[in-house]
Amino acid sequence: MKFAVFGTGMVGRTIANRLNELGHDVTIGTRDVSATLARTEGDSYGNPPFSEWQVQHSTIALASFSDASNTSDYLINATSGESILTILSDIDEAMITGKILIDIANPLDFSNGMPPSLSVVNTDSLGEKIQRNFPDIKVVKTLNTMNADLMANPMLLNQAHDVFISGDDADAKQFVIELLQSFGWQEPIDLGGITSARGTEMILPIWLQLYSVLQTPMFNFKVVR
Amino acid sequence: MKFAVFGTGMVGRTIANRLNELGHDVTIGTRDVSATLARTEGDSYGNPPFSEWQVQHSTIALASFSDASNTSDYLINATSGESILTILSDIDEAMITGKILIDIANPLDFSNGMPPSLSVVNTDSLGEKIQRNFPDIKVVKTLNTMNADLMANPMLLNQAHDVFISGDDADAKQFVIELLQSFGWQEPIDLGGITSARGTEMILPIWLQLYSVLQTPMFNFKVVR
Repeated sequence: MKFAVFGTGMVGRTIANRLNELGHDVTIGTRDVSATLARTEGDSYGNPPFSEWQVQHSTIALASFSDASNTSDYLINATSGESILTILSDIDEAMITGKILIDIANPLDFSNGMPPSLSVVNTDSLGEKIQRNFPDIKVVKTLNTMNADLMANPMLLNQAHDVFISGDDADAKQFVIELLQSFGWQEPIDLGGITSARGTEMILPIWLQLYSVLQTPMFNFKVVR
Repeated sequence: MKFAVFGTGMVGRTIANRLNELGHDVTIGTRDVSATLARTEGDSYGNPPFSEWQVQHSTIALASFSDASNTSDYLINATSGESILTILSDIDEAMITGKILIDIANPLDFSNGMPPSLSVVNTDSLGEKIQRNFPDIKVVKTLNTMNADLMANPMLLNQAHDVFISGDDADAKQFVIELLQSFGWQEPIDLGGITSARGTEMILPIWLQLYSVLQTPMFNFKVVR
């Protein structure tokens, strides 16, 4: 299958790599291809610049958001929040209409300093906002409640843990559930329509607190019954 | 030990009963004692009116918020949210100064219909708001992330699951950790200062969604490492 992953950061790279390992064609989308490739410095977490990463992941393509969308059947939002709204507005509608967008981002707001708060919250969510602004895309929210390595490979923890899924289109959700299962997620918990993205996005603050307390991002929530 | 539990609903009753079972003196606080006792109808969840409940729990006292505070060393907020701010304002400062307030409530906002949203959220929380308004009380936030029966008796689930704790006063937190352990909670997770109450209060929306999906309130989160 053909996937466009929006976002060149660690989340985008990790998901792109996992999809590629599983045999899918993957294009990472970016605003400006030459600017992305020209960067020579890594990020503040010690991750290498994109060009260096790409040398070791040469089967993954890099293209503009628009070209990546045009050549792909499925879209993944791995940007840091609401920038996806502008990105989608700038793409010719014909290249995205009818496609599934898997939204794995959180609406991060760094304007109050660290840790980030949420720019959309409580009675709205990023997932809903994308769906409302682009009614011809099928938005499925998932994977936004854990670290990128665990998103892509849940078996990295020895015990079972959970992933949630929200969306208005049943067939799109079924597609995403099967994709998650191919990653190693056994039973994704379907929370209902896209409004339930509020609940999973609002996990971000406690996730950040636990990251600080546990001193590792390698943890996740399990719903114990 | 002497506890005042603010709130006559199921959360207040369940916690009061558990404390009493464990040998503590418990007074439930209410706005108007005679009005509380005069009610003859149960709530919308099928719980009996307070007077009927009290017949079977006769060792638990009922008093005004003020009298309950005056005769108790420890206070518990089991009201439905921000009403605690008015309640505390109406009590003579001398009756609450220096005391520990265990805040197990969430700032529920029913003004947008069901399910409730939060009236304080994202860059603030109910826990912080109480601490800010009443700097001479030691606020400890905990137990606000699961059903009342599980708060009081975590062993009702067969697998281990987690409770979180937030607060600025280390001794007050240690007291609450030991109280939680007496309830059956093995290792409460200390999230840090009272600002970390934001994280646990923001779990409410996904809790409500899971309650709807799982069709039972008998579940809780475990942090899998």
